Amino acid sequence: MSLLVVGSIAYDTIETPTTKVEDSLGGSALYFSAAASLFSPVNVVGVVGSDFDASKISFLKKRGVNLDGLYMESGKTFRWGGRYFDDMNRRETLFTYLNVFERFQPVIPEHYKKSEFVFLANIDPELQLDVLNQINNPKLIVLDTMNFWISGKRKELEEVLKVVDIIVLNDEEAKELTGEMGLIKATKAIPAMGPKSVIVKKGEHGAMLYHENEFFFVPAFPLDSVVDPTGAGDSFAGGFMGYLAKTGQIDQATLKKAMVYGSTIASFNVEDFSFNRLENLTMKEIKERVKIFKKMTSF
Amino acid sequence: MSLLVVGSIAYDTIETPTTKVEDSLGGSALYFSAAASLFSPVNVVGVVGSDFDASKISFLKKRGVNLDGLYMESGKTFRWGGRYFDDMNRRETLFTYLNVFERFQPVIPEHYKKSEFVFLANIDPELQLDVLNQINNPKLIVLDTMNFWISGKRKELEEVLKVVDIIVLNDEEAKELTGEMGLIKATKAIPAMGPKSVIVKKGEHGAMLYHENEFFFVPAFPLDSVVDPTGAGDSFAGGFMGYLAKTGQIDQATLKKAMVYGSTIASFNVEDFSFNRLENLTMKEIKERVKIFKKMTSF
Repeated sequence: MSLLVVGSIAYDTIETPTTKVEDSLGGSALYFSAAASLFSPVNVVGVVGSDFDASKISFLKKRGVNLDGLYMESGKTFRWGGRYFDDMNRRETLFTYLNVFERFQPVIPEHYKKSEFVFLANIDPELQLDVLNQINNPKLIVLDTMNFWISGKRKELEEVLKVVDIIVLNDEEAKELTGEMGLIKATKAIPAMGPKSVIVKKGEHGAMLYHENEFFFVPAFPLDSVVDPTGAGDSFAGGFMGYLAKTGQIDQATLKKAMVYGSTIASFNVEDFSFNRLENLTMKEIKERVKIFKKMTSF
Repeated sequence: MSLLVVGSIAYDTIETPTTKVEDSLGGSALYFSAAASLFSPVNVVGVVGSDFDASKISFLKKRGVNLDGLYMESGKTFRWGGRYFDDMNRRETLFTYLNVFERFQPVIPEHYKKSEFVFLANIDPELQLDVLNQINNPKLIVLDTMNFWISGKRKELEEVLKVVDIIVLNDEEAKELTGEMGLIKATKAIPAMGPKSVIVKKGEHGAMLYHENEFFFVPAFPLDSVVDPTGAGDSFAGGFMGYLAKTGQIDQATLKKAMVYGSTIASFNVEDFSFNRLENLTMKEIKERVKIFKKMTSF
């Protein structure tokens, strides 16, 4: 199945307790693509500035990522700076320069319009809706969002949620979206807003799927140390949707496996900065880790 | 296998966002026993004051809980008061009156001394060591502890840990015990202190077992609402050890199943105050929930 992603392309400046990296390539669309392309070709829609160095994403092209929808505008590429606290589970944003992303109006190339699986990364819900209006007849729409849109563009978000199949968000966002204090109640309240299924990302505690009134849990892979958590959520979504696009199925059993593949890819992603780990990741490594997930959860 | 527990018997005053209950029966030894006795007889060691109303625990006797080691001293029973915050995941202690518990010196009745499985609930590590010295040749020793002892009686805790098989603690305690900032590194550092295996309780995120260099994860059962989280950890430990004592096995496969039974019993316990839910819980209900755990985790 063909897979399309719309999201950000960014240069990140990241401080961890031990290291600082500057202008490291990132952004939701690229983290998603680096993950999903391990399973399936990806059509990318996004914008970069004239300072963008395309050589850094040549590995994506080799893996079947179509960059025809990656537009270059005059100006600078989106920049984000963040600092992780000692436990690596919490972070603060140091700066956000939208640059060319501020005027981003996604135009879906003609040959992308038949994409069957669509991932709307965490961008303005107005743009998410605009993207959907340009796509012919998608089979599966997955949407990511954040507190900023939940509080700031609630009406637009509610509009796009009506046509979304799966929403991906974290526990705080699920609570804010629904006004429920407990995560389980919040999760169960979401389908009434549109999405048939809900994926809650819980960081070091893994992820949870709510689908057809049933829950499924996958832990986070137990790593001795996390080098850089940036992109964990988007690489999870990429592994999840890449696996679905590869199999072409969206039944319960396949969704569960896709959750495990998502958690597996995210666990590799956080082992290094930027795409350093995903760039050279092999299917053999992925399958070995999925096997360990099975041992770690079956009884 | 015979199962022994040493811990507290308490009257709890508990405030949740919606309800307040006063002098509700609780304490680690009783929560453990109410859970474990669903699977196996239990020998209890503890102390109560002359104000203790034994009629409230008659259901335990019927389930094979031996109370010969429950000593009544003149004075008042241990009292604890706590208030849960809106999300029910965090709480603050409002008061602690040790009362007769302050002078507690556990004496193990002669016919308890051959107990093969021992649970040292969260009490002073000096007392935990004292209990072990009175028991003949236990096959499996499981210990619970908390920050108060980790910082306040570190030397004594280190002493008892040397002879313990499994330690049960929460993530903050694992980090404090080992000085490691990350939970996985902390967990892996514990076996060098004595316990061959580590169980980390993660509240709404479930629990994790580290045994023979392998991890196993079980989620918390997804409940719409938690009525009272008090005793969740001790009822988990009771379900875990009760299941082990029933099967008589302590191999990896049995430990994994015991983790699921522990999480199952804990999930019932938090559905009501005190032992209101555990008192009438049936094996049919337990097995049904274990089956759901299987569906929620297997792929």
